Amino acid sequence: MIPTPYLLFLGDAPDQLAAKVAIGIKDWRPENAVGQFRLRGCKADLALPDMTLQEARTAGAQTLVIGVANRGGVISAAWKKVLIEALDMGYGIASGLHNLLRDDPDLAAAAGRAGRELHDVRVPSVSYPIATGEKRRGKRCLAVGTDCSVGKMYTGLAMDAEMRKRGLKSSFRATGQTGILITGGGVPLDAVVADFMAGSVEYLTPDIDADHWDHIEGQGSLFHVSYSGVTMALLHGGQPDALILAHEPTRTHMRGLPGHALPTLEQLRDTALPLARVANPDCTVAGISVNTAAMAEAEALDYLARVEERMGLPAADPFRQGAARLVDALDQI
Amino acid sequence: MIPTPYLLFLGDAPDQLAAKVAIGIKDWRPENAVGQFRLRGCKADLALPDMTLQEARTAGAQTLVIGVANRGGVISAAWKKVLIEALDMGYGIASGLHNLLRDDPDLAAAAGRAGRELHDVRVPSVSYPIATGEKRRGKRCLAVGTDCSVGKMYTGLAMDAEMRKRGLKSSFRATGQTGILITGGGVPLDAVVADFMAGSVEYLTPDIDADHWDHIEGQGSLFHVSYSGVTMALLHGGQPDALILAHEPTRTHMRGLPGHALPTLEQLRDTALPLARVANPDCTVAGISVNTAAMAEAEALDYLARVEERMGLPAADPFRQGAARLVDALDQI
Repeated sequence: MIPTPYLLFLGDAPDQLAAKVAIGIKDWRPENAVGQFRLRGCKADLALPDMTLQEARTAGAQTLVIGVANRGGVISAAWKKVLIEALDMGYGIASGLHNLLRDDPDLAAAAGRAGRELHDVRVPSVSYPIATGEKRRGKRCLAVGTDCSVGKMYTGLAMDAEMRKRGLKSSFRATGQTGILITGGGVPLDAVVADFMAGSVEYLTPDIDADHWDHIEGQGSLFHVSYSGVTMALLHGGQPDALILAHEPTRTHMRGLPGHALPTLEQLRDTALPLARVANPDCTVAGISVNTAAMAEAEALDYLARVEERMGLPAADPFRQGAARLVDALDQI
Repeated sequence: MIPTPYLLFLGDAPDQLAAKVAIGIKDWRPENAVGQFRLRGCKADLALPDMTLQEARTAGAQTLVIGVANRGGVISAAWKKVLIEALDMGYGIASGLHNLLRDDPDLAAAAGRAGRELHDVRVPSVSYPIATGEKRRGKRCLAVGTDCSVGKMYTGLAMDAEMRKRGLKSSFRATGQTGILITGGGVPLDAVVADFMAGSVEYLTPDIDADHWDHIEGQGSLFHVSYSGVTMALLHGGQPDALILAHEPTRTHMRGLPGHALPTLEQLRDTALPLARVANPDCTVAGISVNTAAMAEAEALDYLARVEERMGLPAADPFRQGAARLVDALDQI
C-alpha cells in the first residue's frame, strides 16, 4: 500500500485532461489529498489548496503522487528537481508513468540516500501465485465492457462509494495504475506475466466477510482482440457473483481497431455470463452501466429506458445519475 | 532461432519420462538430433548414438539441448561441468528449465568467455507488440482443449507432419518451451506480459502464402480458470481459420483443480467458436482430437465413432491413428 495522504503533483500540465489521475484521486478519495503542487505554466487546477512541499509535509502528506502525464515520456529536469527535493524532505513518490522512476539513476540515488520509496505502480511488486479456483468467502462484482474504456473503473468506484455511503461493507479493488493510485493499492494486471494473471486477481480479492462486496476494476473487453486475455483472467480469477455490463453507445468501432464492430449488450451478456459461471456457477448479470457522456440529457434518458426494457435489467449512467440503482440490484444477490 | 542440429543432453535422468523434451525432439524433428549425451546412471535412452561432446561437435552439432528435467530445480555440479565444457568447445546451450542458465554465474561467465549463447526458452527474448487484429494472409489452425494437457501440442505437430508428408505448405508455431525446443523457435506465451500476449501470437504467425497452414500450439483451456486468459489470447491473436477440439475422455476433473468438472465437447465448441469469430468471422470447427492413451484399442475406436456421430465432425486420435483425417478436414476450409 502507498502511504496516504498525498500531495498531488500536477507539474506543468498543458490542460485539465492531462491531470486525469489527480482528478480521479480528488473525485474518489478526496480525504487522501491534502493539496496540489503546480509548476509555473500548469494549466490544470483541482481547486485544492496550492501548497509547497514543506507546507504539505507539515499538513501530514506522506507521498507525492505524480497526478499528470509527462510530455514525450521524459521526466524533465524541472520535475526531477522537485521530486528529489521531496525525497530529501521525507516523501515517498508514487507514479503510473510508463518510464519508471526507479530507472532514473538520479531519482534512484536520491531515494536510496533518503531511505524513501519509489512506487512505480505500473509494474508488479509481488510474486503472484497460480490461480487455484477455490471458492472465496464474500461477494464480488465485476464490470465487463462491450469495449475498452467505456467506464468500467468509474462504475466500480461509483458502486463502492454508494455502498459505503449506505454503511454497507464494500471495497474497490484496483487492477490498473489509475485505480491503484486512487486507492493506494492493487494489481497492475496488464503488466502481470500470463501464467499468473488469474492468480493475481485471486490474491487481490481474498476471503472477506460474507456480506462484504468487492468491486473489482474491469480491464479490456472479451471482444477486444488485443486485451481479451486480461478480461478473461478477471472473470476466472475474480469469480464474480455479479456482472455489470458496461457500454458506450456512440462508439463506431472497437477502440484502436478500425473495422472491428462492437458487440451488442445481448452478445456481451451471452458471452460473459457462461464464461463467468465456469468459475462461479451462481454468477448473474445484475445491471447495465451506460456511459452517456456524448448524449444530451433527454437522449440519454430515453436510451437508458429503452435498454432497460430490452434487457430486463436496471440500466443507469453512474456519472449522470449515481450508482444507486446498480447497488440496489446487488441486494437481490 | 536456436542453431541446429542438436546434441541431446539427457544427464542423469531417473527414468524415460524425465527426458520428455528430448523424446519430443527425437519424435518430431529427428533430423535435428545428431545423438544423445548421457551421464553415468542415466535411465533414459532415445536409441540415438551415444556421443561425447567432441564427437557430436565433429558431426556438426551446434547446440547442446537440455532434454531432461533437473532434480529439485538445481543445476548440479555434474551437469555444470559438462555444460561449461560444451560452451568452451563452441556449443550454444538451450534449456526450458525453470531456473535459468543465465542466472547461474558460472555458466554466464563461461558463455561470455566463449562467446556462445545461452537460450533460456522459458523467457521471452523479444519485445512483442500490442495486437492489432489486422487480417493476415494464409491459414491458421489452433487446437483448443476441454482441459490443459490433453494433447494439443501433439495434435498440431502431427497435423503439421502429415501436411508436410503430403508436400503441402505447413508450419508448426510453438507457444511453449517444449515446442520451442523441438522446432528451434517460438513464443513462450505463459511468460509473456499480459498486455502483449495476443500481440506475441500475431508476431509468431505473420503473413504467409495463401495456401500455407500454420499449426499454432494451443495452451491451457477456456475452462481452466488458472490459464484461460492465455487460451483467449491464442484465439484472438492467432485468428484461426480452423479449430480442432482436443479432449481426454478419462479425466475426472480439470487438471490441478479438484471439484472442477470438465466441459463437454459441445460446450467447448459453443464457447470457443463464437470467441474465435470475434477475431476471424470465417473460423470453423474442423475436427476433434481425442487422447485415447488410457483406453484399450476397441474402447478407443468405439469412443471415437460415437463422438464422430454425435458431433458431426471427424474424430481421431492422432497418436494412435495419425492425423490424416484431421488434415483432410482442413481441405474443406
